[in-house]
Amino acid sequence: MPRYRILIEYDGTPYSGWQRQANAPSVQQTIEEAIFRFSGEDVPTRGAGRTDTGVHALGQVAHFDLAGPWRGERIRDAMNAQLRPAPIAILEAAEVADSFDARRSATARHYLYRVLDRRAPAAIDISRVWDVRKRLDIDAMQEAANALLGKHDFTTFRSADCQAKSPLKTLDRLDITRSGDEVLFSVSARSFLHNQVRSMVGTLKKVGERKWPVSAVAEVLEARDRKACGPVAPPGGLYLMRVDYGSRAEQAVDEADEDEA
Amino acid sequence: MPRYRILIEYDGTPYSGWQRQANAPSVQQTIEEAIFRFSGEDVPTRGAGRTDTGVHALGQVAHFDLAGPWRGERIRDAMNAQLRPAPIAILEAAEVADSFDARRSATARHYLYRVLDRRAPAAIDISRVWDVRKRLDIDAMQEAANALLGKHDFTTFRSADCQAKSPLKTLDRLDITRSGDEVLFSVSARSFLHNQVRSMVGTLKKVGERKWPVSAVAEVLEARDRKACGPVAPPGGLYLMRVDYGSRAEQAVDEADEDEA
Repeated sequence: MPRYRILIEYDGTPYSGWQRQANAPSVQQTIEEAIFRFSGEDVPTRGAGRTDTGVHALGQVAHFDLAGPWRGERIRDAMNAQLRPAPIAILEAAEVADSFDARRSATARHYLYRVLDRRAPAAIDISRVWDVRKRLDIDAMQEAANALLGKHDFTTFRSADCQAKSPLKTLDRLDITRSGDEVLFSVSARSFLHNQVRSMVGTLKKVGERKWPVSAVAEVLEARDRKACGPVAPPGGLYLMRVDYGSRAEQAVDEADEDEA
Repeated sequence: MPRYRILIEYDGTPYSGWQRQANAPSVQQTIEEAIFRFSGEDVPTRGAGRTDTGVHALGQVAHFDLAGPWRGERIRDAMNAQLRPAPIAILEAAEVADSFDARRSATARHYLYRVLDRRAPAAIDISRVWDVRKRLDIDAMQEAANALLGKHDFTTFRSADCQAKSPLKTLDRLDITRSGDEVLFSVSARSFLHNQVRSMVGTLKKVGERKWPVSAVAEVLEARDRKACGPVAPPGGLYLMRVDYGSRAEQAVDEADEDEA
């Protein structure tokens, strides 16, 4: 059966995350139902990132197999027609090699976390940013964040629900920039532990509001203790922006698997 | 009584527009109720732009008078506390001269209209963009739009409900730019007729999708006939971005009043 890869955008607000659940609406289930309605085939999908309840995506990737041969454009348009009015859009669809696995083949995942740090609460971006209501010091946060770059045991920044075999991950990018009243955290790695991005952002916010010194972030990382972590940032500010595929022999295969960010 | 000016952001989706209505929720009513709840004073507000149902604002301006003397920061914070969970935020509040009138004193209004022109529908930006599902030619639209700049009789682009005394308006800016899959219309004038921006955008879209020639826009303007207008663009793509105040003696006073854009 031919294998297809789709590129997906969604507003995570009404969903209990990517992953199919018994009693709650998920992005995965909504997509699988759309595939069934246009193709008549009831097939499982696999997503690159198991985004959590309320987390958004501008570039989620998933794959699935269909018996019927379809042109990619046809799959994209048919799925979009079936998905309405759900806040999910298929941006691209294409046939790929049988060996392609949206989750295991990923070589990098790129997340964005948006913080609104003005005095007034969010209005137009409710559920799309974390509104912290006070100005954050981005230079202090960046200095603290640099201690997280590279390969570490990220136990401190890992949810108790995390199913990953190892807490070792390699953080390739954590850039903090300002755009008007927003602070943007651009975070990249081959994969992340469950709640890792939101745990790092929540901890860095403590530094940004000067409640914790810059040095605290390296210390809580070193502690390898979940209790040392700052409060986990809320899900609405998090966006899965892009997933990369390609060869990356220099990193261990056991970092290929993602367990929510 | 001291007069106060507030700067307001709102998601227009759940509201029947700025203006208070008998049987529908409005931004104005929601704001007036918030003022009452913190001050105990039941006062009318006046907004710079009477945005229509579903139209958003990042920089609406309004004024009102209160007996009690208040610091601007206190009004801002108290109103924001009372407004929750409405998608309305008070960005600034300050005392102004008694002669200030948010509507009549405005010297320029700046609107943004966002069009998503990719093949896939909107997902994360449902009700925040117009998703036209096909690529638009922004060069052709800009060439056509240039015919609208300056002082004209805009009867063609005026809703039948428009209450303005004169159809003469001076369009100062209509810039069309691309940002990824979005086409951004940046439109400025001292004031606009009812539905003028959405009527212009809907007409220009006909040129952008090459259904109408570039020359058609000058022709429909010249026709001064509502029936010559293209379809009115939907409200969700429109944002009142900023209102300017200051002296502007060169323009007639009868253009100061705005009747929705």
